[in-house]
Amino acid sequence: SAPLALIAGPCQLETRQHAFDMAGALKELTGKLGIGLVYKTSYDKANRTSLSGKRGAGLEAALPIFDDIRKEFGLPVLTDVHTEEQCAIVAPHVDILQIPAFLSRQTDLLIAAANTGKVVNVKKGQFLAPWDVKNVVAKIVASGNSNVLVTERGASFGYNTLVSDMRALPIMAELGAPVIFDATHSVQQPGGQGGSSGGERRFVETLARAAVAVGVAGVFIETHEDPDNAPSDGPNMVPLKDLPRLLEKLMAFDRIAKG
Amino acid sequence: SAPLALIAGPCQLETRQHAFDMAGALKELTGKLGIGLVYKTSYDKANRTSLSGKRGAGLEAALPIFDDIRKEFGLPVLTDVHTEEQCAIVAPHVDILQIPAFLSRQTDLLIAAANTGKVVNVKKGQFLAPWDVKNVVAKIVASGNSNVLVTERGASFGYNTLVSDMRALPIMAELGAPVIFDATHSVQQPGGQGGSSGGERRFVETLARAAVAVGVAGVFIETHEDPDNAPSDGPNMVPLKDLPRLLEKLMAFDRIAKG
Amino acid sequence: SAPLALIAGPCQLETRQHAFDMAGALKELTGKLGIGLVYKTSYDKANRTSLSGKRGAGLEAALPIFDDIRKEFGLPVLTDVHTEEQCAIVAPHVDILQIPAFLSRQTDLLIAAANTGKVVNVKKGQFLAPWDVKNVVAKIVASGNSNVLVTERGASFGYNTLVSDMRALPIMAELGAPVIFDATHSVQQPGGQGGSSGGERRFVETLARAAVAVGVAGVFIETHEDPDNAPSDGPNMVPLKDLPRLLEKLMAFDRIAKG
Amino acid sequence: SAPLALIAGPCQLETRQHAFDMAGALKELTGKLGIGLVYKTSYDKANRTSLSGKRGAGLEAALPIFDDIRKEFGLPVLTDVHTEEQCAIVAPHVDILQIPAFLSRQTDLLIAAANTGKVVNVKKGQFLAPWDVKNVVAKIVASGNSNVLVTERGASFGYNTLVSDMRALPIMAELGAPVIFDATHSVQQPGGQGGSSGGERRFVETLARAAVAVGVAGVFIETHEDPDNAPSDGPNMVPLKDLPRLLEKLMAFDRIAKG
Repeated sequence: SAPLALIAGPCQLETRQHAFDMAGALKELTGKLGIGLVYKTSYDKANRTSLSGKRGAGLEAALPIFDDIRKEFGLPVLTDVHTEEQCAIVAPHVDILQIPAFLSRQTDLLIAAANTGKVVNVKKGQFLAPWDVKNVVAKIVASGNSNVLVTERGASFGYNTLVSDMRALPIMAELGAPVIFDATHSVQQPGGQGGSSGGERRFVETLARAAVAVGVAGVFIETHEDPDNAPSDGPNMVPLKDLPRLLEKLMAFDRIAKG
Repeated sequence: SAPLALIAGPCQLETRQHAFDMAGALKELTGKLGIGLVYKTSYDKANRTSLSGKRGAGLEAALPIFDDIRKEFGLPVLTDVHTEEQCAIVAPHVDILQIPAFLSRQTDLLIAAANTGKVVNVKKGQFLAPWDVKNVVAKIVASGNSNVLVTERGASFGYNTLVSDMRALPIMAELGAPVIFDATHSVQQPGGQGGSSGGERRFVETLARAAVAVGVAGVFIETHEDPDNAPSDGPNMVPLKDLPRLLEKLMAFDRIAKG
Repeated sequence: SAPLALIAGPCQLETRQHAFDMAGALKELTGKLGIGLVYKTSYDKANRTSLSGKRGAGLEAALPIFDDIRKEFGLPVLTDVHTEEQCAIVAPHVDILQIPAFLSRQTDLLIAAANTGKVVNVKKGQFLAPWDVKNVVAKIVASGNSNVLVTERGASFGYNTLVSDMRALPIMAELGAPVIFDATHSVQQPGGQGGSSGGERRFVETLARAAVAVGVAGVFIETHEDPDNAPSDGPNMVPLKDLPRLLEKLMAFDRIAKG
Repeated sequence: SAPLALIAGPCQLETRQHAFDMAGALKELTGKLGIGLVYKTSYDKANRTSLSGKRGAGLEAALPIFDDIRKEFGLPVLTDVHTEEQCAIVAPHVDILQIPAFLSRQTDLLIAAANTGKVVNVKKGQFLAPWDVKNVVAKIVASGNSNVLVTERGASFGYNTLVSDMRALPIMAELGAPVIFDATHSVQQPGGQGGSSGGERRFVETLARAAVAVGVAGVFIETHEDPDNAPSDGPNMVPLKDLPRLLEKLMAFDRIAKG
C-alpha cells in the first residue's frame, strides 16, 4: 500500500496566471509535507446546473497551459473529458483523463479514454452501486488499458443530497484499481441553490478523515485561494490556506490505516 | 388538457422488418383505441451496463428506416441522441429527439438538440429532483426552442432500485412542458442483474395507472412481441399482446383525470 | 373487490364538541356520496417532534367520546394505541386499533392489539420494505386475529422527506390483508419545520389519486375545518370543505380500477 | 476530548454463565488495552423481525445478573428499555438506559428514562435526520436529566439497507451530548433475510474506523464468541477473538483524531 496521494487544484482553469499560482503553491506545500500531487483542473464545466454558470477557459486555451504546468512544475495533470473526440485531443497534454460521474456509463467515452493509453480516472455515478463499478472498469480494461482509478464522490440520497457510503471504498478496492475519495464533490448539494449546486465545505474534513481511515490510495480535494469568489463549486472548495493542516491530519490517519 | 398520448416501440431498432412489424402493429392497435402514437426506437444503446450488451442497429442503418416508418405509417418517430454531432444528423429523420436521463445535465447536448428545432424530450436524471428540471428546460428554451417534453423515469432509491415519486409529475407540469411518464424504465433495477439491468415488468401497469390518474400528457411504454428474447430491457418491456387491455385502462383513468 | 372506503377525521381529538361536529359533517358528506366511513381520531400524539407539541385530549377523556360517536352516529371508530396496556383498555370503545408506523415492529404491542379481537390496522414503518410487512402481519395472525389492515404512509427518502412507492400497494395486497393508503401522512416532511413536522397538503390529492388508481381498499385522510389552526399535522390535513370534490374524483378512479 | 470508550457485549443476555464469560473476557482485554468499557446486554429483543426470533432471558431473570456483573467485575452496564414501566424497574440495576432507534420519538418513554436520573443513550431512528436529534435530546433534558448520549446506527437507504452518514457525527456533537457510533447495527440489512435481519460483519471495521477518525466519544460493538450460532444479530456481531486487533486500530485513530 503506497502512501496517500493528493489530487488537487481549483475547480476551473481560470487563467494561465491563476493556474501557475495554484500549481506553484500546491507543489510547494505538498513538497514540504511529502505527499504526492496530481494537479487537477478543468477546461470546461460541461454540466453546470444552469446556462449562466461559467464553464472555464475552453479546450484550445487550456492545452498549452497544461503543457506548461507539466514542464514548469514537473507535475502530472488530470482533467476531465466529456466527448469521445476530446480524449485523443487532450491526452497528449495530460497524465490522467477523468470521466465525469454523470458520464460513467457512456461506453464510447470510456473506450475512447481507454484507447489513449493514459491513466483513466472514473468517477462513480451518483446513481451507481459500488459493486456496479465493476462493469465500468471492465469496459476500460477490455479496451486494453488497465491503468484505471475509481473515485467515490457520493450517492444520491433523496433530493439535492449526496451521502458517502464508506463501504463503497473496500468494495471498489476489490476491483484492483486504486480508489480515490473525492472529498469536495461529496459534500455537494446537487442543484441545492436553485440555479447552481450548493455544498457544505465544513464536511470536507469529516468525510476525508473517514475515507482515509478506511483506506484509500488518494484524496481528491478542490481548492482555491478564495473559494467564495470562485467561478464554480465555491461552496465546497477548501481554502488553500487550510490545506496544510488538513493534509497533515490525513497523512497521520493514512499511516495508521496502512500500518 | 389533450387526451393521453402514447410513446411506444421496442427498446432497440433490431432490423427493418422488425421495426415495420412493430410500427404496423402499434399503429393498428392505437388506431382502434383512438390514442395518439409516437413510434419510439433506438439506433444505439450507448450506456449498456457491460460491453457485451447489444447496442442496436447503428446510426447509418437506422436513418433510412426512420424515414420509411414516417412515410409508410405516417407515424412521428422519437429516438435518443448521445452526442452533439448526432443531433443535426438525426434530426431530419425524426420528429422528437430524446435526451437520455444520464445526459440530462450535459449542456452542449441540450443546446445541440434545441438547435435542430425538433421537439426535445428530456428524460429526468435519476439523480435530479423534480424542481431541478427547471434548469434543464431553461437551457433548451434559452436556445430558442420551446418544444420541450419532460419525462419522469424514476429516482435513485438506495442501490439498484428506482422509485417513482408521483409528486414529480405536478411539479414538472408547472414548468409548462408536457409531462410524460416512462412506465417501463421506471421499473428497472439498474445494474440489478450484475452485468445488465433487471426490471419488474409486473409493476409497469401499477406505475402507469398511478401516473395517468395524477395526470400526464403521455405515457412511454417499451413493448416487444417477445420481451424475454429481446436484445435489451427484456425484463421491463410489456408484451405487445398485453398492450390493448393496458391502454384501455389507462385511457379510462385519463378521462377521469382530465374530466 | 369492495368499493373504496374512507378512514377520516381530525388528527387529534380536540374536544367532545369538535369531535361531534367533525363526525356529523363527515357522516353527512360520505352518506351523500355513498362511500363507507370509519371515523379516525387520536386521544394522544405520543411521538410529537418536540415536547411542546400538543398531545390531545388523553385516554380517559376520550373513551366516552368514542362511545358516543359510535352510538350517536353509528360510525365505526379507529384510534391508535401506543402501549400494550392501552390495547385492552381502548378496545371496547373502538372498532379498529391502529399501530403507529414507528411501532410497527414492536412485537408485544402487535400481540396485545391482536388479542383484543378487534380489527388491527398496522401502519407500515417508514423504515420497512413493503415485503417486510409480511412478518408484521404474521405476528398478528399467529396471535389468532386475522382481521388485519395494512397502511402505506411513505418510506424514508433522504432526510426530512418521504416517498410513496406505489409498488408497495400490490406487494402488500398479496398478503391478503386490505391495503389502505394514508394520503395525508404520506405528504409529511418529518421534522421538516425544526420543532415540528412539515407537510405539503397540495400533494394529498396527487398521491391519493395515484393509490386509488393502482387499487386500494381504502384511503386514510386527515381533515379539519381549519387545518392551519389545528393543534397538529396542520400542514398536511385537507380542509373539510375540499373533501367532497376530492372523494368524488377518487370514487370515479376506484370504479375504473376495480371495473 | 476524553479518549475513546467502548460499549460492548453480546446482543442478548443468553445465560448467567454466558454473561459472566463475556464480561470477564471483555474486562480483561479492555484492561490490557487501556480502553474504558461499558458492558452492553439486552434482556429482551422487543422488535424481532418475526415471532420466531429468540427474545432473550427476560426482565426478571436479567436484573440479578446485571447486579452481579456490576459487583463482580466493577463494570457499568447498559441495557435497552421498551416501555415506560421498564425504566423505573430496570434503572437501579444498570448505569445506562438505552432507547432503541425505532422508539426514539416516543415521548413518554424518553421522559420515563430521563426521570430515573440514569444516563440515557438514545439511538437515532433510521428515519431521523441528524439535526432532528436535537428535539429528542431536548425532551430528555427538559425532563431534568442532562446525562444523554446519542448513538448513530445508520439511516434508511432504499429498502433493506442502511447507510452511515459520517456527517451525522459532527452534527450531533453540536448538541453537546457525547456521540457514540454503533458499528455493528450500522451494517445490518433490516429484514434482509426474509424472516430476520441480515448484516455484513466485514464492514464493521470499515465503519468503525471512519467514525473514530471523524471523532466520537465511543464505539458500540456487539460481540460474541461464536456469532454464527448466536440467537440474534449473528450476521453483524464481531467474533470476540477479533476484537483486540480492531480496538488497537481504533485507539490509534482516536489518538490522531483528538490529537
